[in-house]
Amino acid sequence: MSRTAKHEDTYHHGDLRKALLDSARILLEEGGPPALSLREIARRVGVSAPAAYHHFRNLEAIAQAVAEQGFGELSAALDNARSGDGVNAMGMVYIGFAQANPGLYRLMFSDGLAAKSQAGAALRAMRAQAFATLRTALEAQVPPDQARSLALYLWSVTHGLALLAIDGQLGGAEQAQGQIAQVLEVTGRALPPLATS
Amino acid sequence: MSRTAKHEDTYHHGDLRKALLDSARILLEEGGPPALSLREIARRVGVSAPAAYHHFRNLEAIAQAVAEQGFGELSAALDNARSGDGVNAMGMVYIGFAQANPGLYRLMFSDGLAAKSQAGAALRAMRAQAFATLRTALEAQVPPDQARSLALYLWSVTHGLALLAIDGQLGGAEQAQGQIAQVLEVTGRALPPLATS
Repeated sequence: MSRTAKHEDTYHHGDLRKALLDSARILLEEGGPPALSLREIARRVGVSAPAAYHHFRNLEAIAQAVAEQGFGELSAALDNARSGDGVNAMGMVYIGFAQANPGLYRLMFSDGLAAKSQAGAALRAMRAQAFATLRTALEAQVPPDQARSLALYLWSVTHGLALLAIDGQLGGAEQAQGQIAQVLEVTGRALPPLATS
Repeated sequence: MSRTAKHEDTYHHGDLRKALLDSARILLEEGGPPALSLREIARRVGVSAPAAYHHFRNLEAIAQAVAEQGFGELSAALDNARSGDGVNAMGMVYIGFAQANPGLYRLMFSDGLAAKSQAGAALRAMRAQAFATLRTALEAQVPPDQARSLALYLWSVTHGLALLAIDGQLGGAEQAQGQIAQVLEVTGRALPPLATS
């Protein structure tokens, strides 16, 4: 019995799925979306590629599952911030998520490996859902006819700022945090007074 | 004499350099920065890879030269817009450049193939220069101690909006233009009254 086959025996079904997703996320943070490879994901977990195919149809199916995890985590983080001081706190959480998971953020929000595939369509739907959540939250706080453009404004500035930060355009970590706070403060000036819920 | 060698004879020195850069830009727009390949660039021009190496040390040297062209063109376009109506006009020009040259824009402003190389450092310097130009322009129009954070704010929102547009997140062309104009209008609300030059 080979070493690989032995490892396959040691995983319960759900455990192996989780191990493969964990392995994919480590690869993603090491080299961004282009570093994802089903063979390498399986190798690091200590199973054969066919064992990985038992859980995921192909690499894009893993990428989609990892992105789903990411959208779930981002959404939970933003929900927790909602008790804080509004747009600034939400912006810091959003950008903090990108800084903590730059490879995952690129997979979730950039046109990655999967633009025209089924997984790419699923990713697009997840992004649209995240944007709809933001717009709905704003509809309770601003004149409803402005919610769409204000939501797109907030998404643009936080997306741009997050990418400048993870691309290293804002300098070292401490310098970056100060600049992010400043930009978010300026960002808030364009908003009408928000109704508090 | 092979067909390839014959082609090499037909190019004057500067013409071949320009033909290689043109070929690189077409590849860039077909498949983004990952599609760049020195062999393919040369093949499309009809010369051998060694003939291309005569002009460019490696692929990154071509990428750097193409990015330099891009920064020159973007800067010229923004200069022309300066006689227009301020931030909105400049923002439309910036985002229009990205929409017209999405592959080139990704090469210029995203962390591309060359992060740790000499060409990557040159790209970083070009980006820093472009940002310094924006900051300097703002220093004449806003309180000087606000110029840096306002410049970063404007860069964040236009960068984010440009990427959302070229990633197809804003829907079809006509819909996208309307949304871009709305977001830029909101963006301007955060700015102090601008001194006119």
